[in-house]
Amino acid sequence: MSETAAQLLLERCDELAAISSNPGLIERLHLSPEHRAANDLVAGWMKDAGLSTWQDAAGNQCGRLEGREPGLPALLLGSHIDTVRDAGRYDGMLGVLLAITTVSRIRDAGIDLPFALEVVAFSDEEGTRFGTALLGSRALAGTWHDDWWNLTDKDGITLFEAFHDFGLDPARLPNAYRRPDNLIGYLEAHIEQGPILEDADRRLAVVTSIAGARRFGLTITGKAGHAGGTPYDRRRDALVGASELVVAVERISKESGTIGTVGRLEAFPGGVNVIPGRVELSLDMRAEFDDDRDDCLRRITEAAHEICERRNLAFHSTEIYRADAVRCDLELQEAFAAGIRATGDAEPMAFWSRAGHDGVAVVAVTPIAMLFLRCRGGISHHPDEAVKKADVAAALDAYEATVLSLVSSSSSS
Amino acid sequence: MSETAAQLLLERCDELAAISSNPGLIERLHLSPEHRAANDLVAGWMKDAGLSTWQDAAGNQCGRLEGREPGLPALLLGSHIDTVRDAGRYDGMLGVLLAITTVSRIRDAGIDLPFALEVVAFSDEEGTRFGTALLGSRALAGTWHDDWWNLTDKDGITLFEAFHDFGLDPARLPNAYRRPDNLIGYLEAHIEQGPILEDADRRLAVVTSIAGARRFGLTITGKAGHAGGTPYDRRRDALVGASELVVAVERISKESGTIGTVGRLEAFPGGVNVIPGRVELSLDMRAEFDDDRDDCLRRITEAAHEICERRNLAFHSTEIYRADAVRCDLELQEAFAAGIRATGDAEPMAFWSRAGHDGVAVVAVTPIAMLFLRCRGGISHHPDEAVKKADVAAALDAYEATVLSLVSSSSSS
Repeated sequence: MSETAAQLLLERCDELAAISSNPGLIERLHLSPEHRAANDLVAGWMKDAGLSTWQDAAGNQCGRLEGREPGLPALLLGSHIDTVRDAGRYDGMLGVLLAITTVSRIRDAGIDLPFALEVVAFSDEEGTRFGTALLGSRALAGTWHDDWWNLTDKDGITLFEAFHDFGLDPARLPNAYRRPDNLIGYLEAHIEQGPILEDADRRLAVVTSIAGARRFGLTITGKAGHAGGTPYDRRRDALVGASELVVAVERISKESGTIGTVGRLEAFPGGVNVIPGRVELSLDMRAEFDDDRDDCLRRITEAAHEICERRNLAFHSTEIYRADAVRCDLELQEAFAAGIRATGDAEPMAFWSRAGHDGVAVVAVTPIAMLFLRCRGGISHHPDEAVKKADVAAALDAYEATVLSLVSSSSSS
Repeated sequence: MSETAAQLLLERCDELAAISSNPGLIERLHLSPEHRAANDLVAGWMKDAGLSTWQDAAGNQCGRLEGREPGLPALLLGSHIDTVRDAGRYDGMLGVLLAITTVSRIRDAGIDLPFALEVVAFSDEEGTRFGTALLGSRALAGTWHDDWWNLTDKDGITLFEAFHDFGLDPARLPNAYRRPDNLIGYLEAHIEQGPILEDADRRLAVVTSIAGARRFGLTITGKAGHAGGTPYDRRRDALVGASELVVAVERISKESGTIGTVGRLEAFPGGVNVIPGRVELSLDMRAEFDDDRDDCLRRITEAAHEICERRNLAFHSTEIYRADAVRCDLELQEAFAAGIRATGDAEPMAFWSRAGHDGVAVVAVTPIAMLFLRCRGGISHHPDEAVKKADVAAALDAYEATVLSLVSSSSSS
């Protein structure tokens, strides 16, 4: 039966993947027309599962199944439905669909629920459009910053304008906030986005903590000039400086056992015969422990200053995102472990998440925990993302057993 | 009087600079609406100078002053009016305006001309829009390649479509060709785009040759992946590989006394939390002698293969432009030297041009020569491009004396 449910779930992932701003690949950005279409599709599935649905003031698509009486605090289950550019079809979406199917099965089983169940499809986790991630979950958690309204996308549209264009009223954003006393906890299932489960030949794992991450927008400024006429001793080539920095980020991160990535880099003005006068690049730093991450960042910043001083360039860094490492709640971890054991895996694996997730924001209002699913080759943020149907079926069984274990412990406490 | 003429000429440079597709900076691309507006403005000045005007089949704006009888072979004077992105206001435009003013003064002086004088404002020298440079002068020289019609700009518009959009008929392109027996030679004045004249405290120089240049579009391909989930030993990060190559281009070029520049570089898909799976970059190589340039290129290509092999990346290179070094005609060089001497500079400087110019194409149909003007700080392809009014006045005097010297030698031969 779980195989059939898993099959339907994977077909729904394909349906969501077809909602893309870019034919031939998957790209679904925050507050885009495709975001609207995805919310509508997901809301339909939520209704089919018996949930009452609404879109909150931050564009998150929500659905609720009442417990044994209306208005009880809710256990949130969810993930996100925005994507990176040229994405895979499971990062985020699979977690939303696992949540909907799990709630549907619990409803069908007629379980007496001591709390409500809610599914949330977060509007922005990746930060692809505005550079700042977790906008959906931060609105829900009440950790929104009003200076974000001025963030702009690559076409110069502000977040404020994008809210209006989407039909949302920025003034009503605080309504997305959920009070801690109305919440039991937050559970999320997600593909691992790494090779640990596959290497161990295991299907599912409990997440112990979510890595702390910091992201920066860096600008290196030199001076544009004619590629032929400007001798090397007069050049202030921003791109050669930026390139030295990219190589240094890899070297220093490896040495310090952390993870540093430059994902975005573009040289300006970008003429084939013009020395680049400016380079814009991004830096993403993450580690299991915040101190390691910040030590590595200090070394990278020192390297940037050394390079720019030697090359007569200016270096500017703006922090665009910061999330410290978050521990998953022990009781909720144990519930996920019980869920995995119910699938026949007697000793569930447990390890930390190298990637950030919505839980990093949600933890501000309620305890969180996560379930990881094996994905092929550890590949993610790429069209080659893939999962096995049998693993999805196991995840459904584990997820249902996890919620039932919380029902039991809540009823007995 | 030359000071007044120089003043007017600089004001016209400002007028041309105001024709830009991008407010706040100078950007005038081949076959754009701004190209049309610039052609119209220049045509008006040509008419004021007594020239009959037409736009040729390649979008070059032309003007002609007949000699002592109609239909004589012509001495061409010119430069280009397209720009790089975020350009200065003198590269190209100054040469066109110096040519118009020179012809105007010779006409006003009522000189008996043994040849016609023509001014050409070339439509495309920089290659900014379609990547391939000298499209205007190559059409004139009959060295057009029909496969260029499929070149695309950044919006995917082909050169063929752009011709139509501009109101030009691609089928009529061969009409832009000028037969050698209708030409006397080609003269061009241009800012130096380097610091040699300024360092020597001199105003003008004769150009001995124009550097050979080759340009390439390079692609480095790895595999996109999640910045958090993908361990370093599994990464195929195209940007770190490309960055090593950018640093190698500078090192190898310096070692071999040539000039290599990466002007364009962008990482894809470009997400802040996505390992770059592909990088597109450009390479511009130039040297006084073609063999030196090609030796250096071999070493850079070896370095690229070594980097990509070590990092499990693919390397692809496409040549988008090639011009071998061109010697300026000795007789025309001597005419320019005579022109400079007429301004009181008894021993004119002479050196090679590191930058490419329209003469590289025009030499296929007629002998060429060039006059360099000092520019501030050697800066070019940048809004800070600047010239002194007194230098422009000297250039006008030298240019006029140069043409008169050719009139004399032609009349006496």
